[in-house]
Amino acid sequence: MVELTPERIVRLERDAVVVLDQRRLPAEEVELRCATAAELAEAIRVLAVRGAPAIGVAAAYGIALAAERGDDLDDAFEALVSSRPTAVNLRWALEAMRGEPSRERAERIHADEVERCRAMGANAVGLFPEDAWVLTHCNAGGLATGGYGTALGAIRAAFESGRVAHVWVDETRPLLQGARLTAWELEQLEIPHAVIADGAAASFMARGEVDLVVTGADRIARNGDTANKIGTYGLAVSCAHHGLPFVVVAPTSTLDASLATGEEIPIEERDPAELTSRFPARNPAFDVTPGSLVTAIVSEHGVHRPPYRESLPLEVAAVP
Amino acid sequence: MVELTPERIVRLERDAVVVLDQRRLPAEEVELRCATAAELAEAIRVLAVRGAPAIGVAAAYGIALAAERGDDLDDAFEALVSSRPTAVNLRWALEAMRGEPSRERAERIHADEVERCRAMGANAVGLFPEDAWVLTHCNAGGLATGGYGTALGAIRAAFESGRVAHVWVDETRPLLQGARLTAWELEQLEIPHAVIADGAAASFMARGEVDLVVTGADRIARNGDTANKIGTYGLAVSCAHHGLPFVVVAPTSTLDASLATGEEIPIEERDPAELTSRFPARNPAFDVTPGSLVTAIVSEHGVHRPPYRESLPLEVAAVP
Repeated sequence: MVELTPERIVRLERDAVVVLDQRRLPAEEVELRCATAAELAEAIRVLAVRGAPAIGVAAAYGIALAAERGDDLDDAFEALVSSRPTAVNLRWALEAMRGEPSRERAERIHADEVERCRAMGANAVGLFPEDAWVLTHCNAGGLATGGYGTALGAIRAAFESGRVAHVWVDETRPLLQGARLTAWELEQLEIPHAVIADGAAASFMARGEVDLVVTGADRIARNGDTANKIGTYGLAVSCAHHGLPFVVVAPTSTLDASLATGEEIPIEERDPAELTSRFPARNPAFDVTPGSLVTAIVSEHGVHRPPYRESLPLEVAAVP
Repeated sequence: MVELTPERIVRLERDAVVVLDQRRLPAEEVELRCATAAELAEAIRVLAVRGAPAIGVAAAYGIALAAERGDDLDDAFEALVSSRPTAVNLRWALEAMRGEPSRERAERIHADEVERCRAMGANAVGLFPEDAWVLTHCNAGGLATGGYGTALGAIRAAFESGRVAHVWVDETRPLLQGARLTAWELEQLEIPHAVIADGAAASFMARGEVDLVVTGADRIARNGDTANKIGTYGLAVSCAHHGLPFVVVAPTSTLDASLATGEEIPIEERDPAELTSRFPARNPAFDVTPGSLVTAIVSEHGVHRPPYRESLPLEVAAVP
């Protein structure tokens, strides 16, 4: 088993952005070469590379590649920014590249994102009780961030501090990012874990087998309203019912200072065929958890608590 | 499309109990012939026939078949009673057959179960607001009951009374009874519906797109604690959070008067491979919703409300 380095997840080679194809995990570790920004945008759309921070990093490399090829940068921006609607990190990284569309800038964004994850992990450790049984949803690990992870980075840091006994992994329908990607990362990190059906989370809480829930985020409004993978909101409701902490771990690149509340966050509606090809279906990819249900938001700047309008580091959420 | 009659779901022929193999739906409509009680027990174990009332009906036919074959009835009882641990209707039907292990008795149990479903449907209609958007979990339809259905029977009756606008169908992981069976039944009944991921239910509630949740039950204790498909408890928690009615529709054969609370209900733990064959997993098939979260329990005797210790028709829950 090879270590999951930032370069394995996404990197810029001479003539292509190369991503580890997350659709093929855990069955096989296959790389996908994207020779243009348009090809990369398609790779993002089909979720070969996914996770809000990782999408931003990949998009930054895509702009650097387009600049080196001499492609029209406006076209590259347009293709990439429209590839997924919900995550704000994508727009954030693209704006950052606009002033300096270079390989070095993209690599710095990538390195910064990983560094932020390590800082978030360190900041989050104090939120874990001793011998914590943690529950997480979707994949907010190294794969989702270009290295280390947000929610999974926090779990990793807490595990290394001896505070994590067990991780429940929501399988995360319909695309099973938990059962495929998070379980795979936890196996590599040798952290005890078990996959469960999304619907089972509340009953494990009722049995006293969950101490806290930790998730990542795709976009956070000024009041702490948090868009994340569909199913997150139900977990937050169950945490409130059982008196358990619900913790969001996300870099400031996830903050959207332009939004007062989560009502304005666009929610991507994906192909119903991801659920069923035979019957009618609705397939929103994300939901919005109100800040009032979020116990704490951990960024690279620290642990933020309600009221989020005052505690979130909005001044650094602007384009870098 | 052929009508889903009680005989199509389960019937006793001269030399076999014949069931519609629910594992193959909706792709194909295949019958499975069980020539002995042991074969039928295996069909129940692997979920070829499933749903608490339907299991009871099938087991009754299994005893009648064993009696006609001259098999050892104690062996037949033992094989059938141990095939699934959570649903109490199985034990109920087997006890009913003990005194009169005949084809006529089994057919009467089947006819009574369907009749009870129709009565429950009529009793439940008043709980549906006008133009209701209903959400249901797993399959508590004709397939699960040997005809008509409990939760889905109530939805059907309310739809025929013009009260149901739309049904959200939880896909119901891991075995997708919602996406495969409930959607298939709703299609046959021409009731508007859409399949959703289990984790999406809470966010549809938050958007105001759910008016009530209706489910079946596998076993109900004296205080109204209700065991049902894993994921049901989380729905009840979300209903409480959103101020929505959470309604259980179940015949008195589901009541277990011997249990004071749901803590004593055995929860079947199924093969982790139903979730993932690659990583560790936990796969409880049921959870228990406390009676305090159940707005109403509808039986063939009427609509029962808290406190359930007083309102449930426990006197008729004993063996018939």
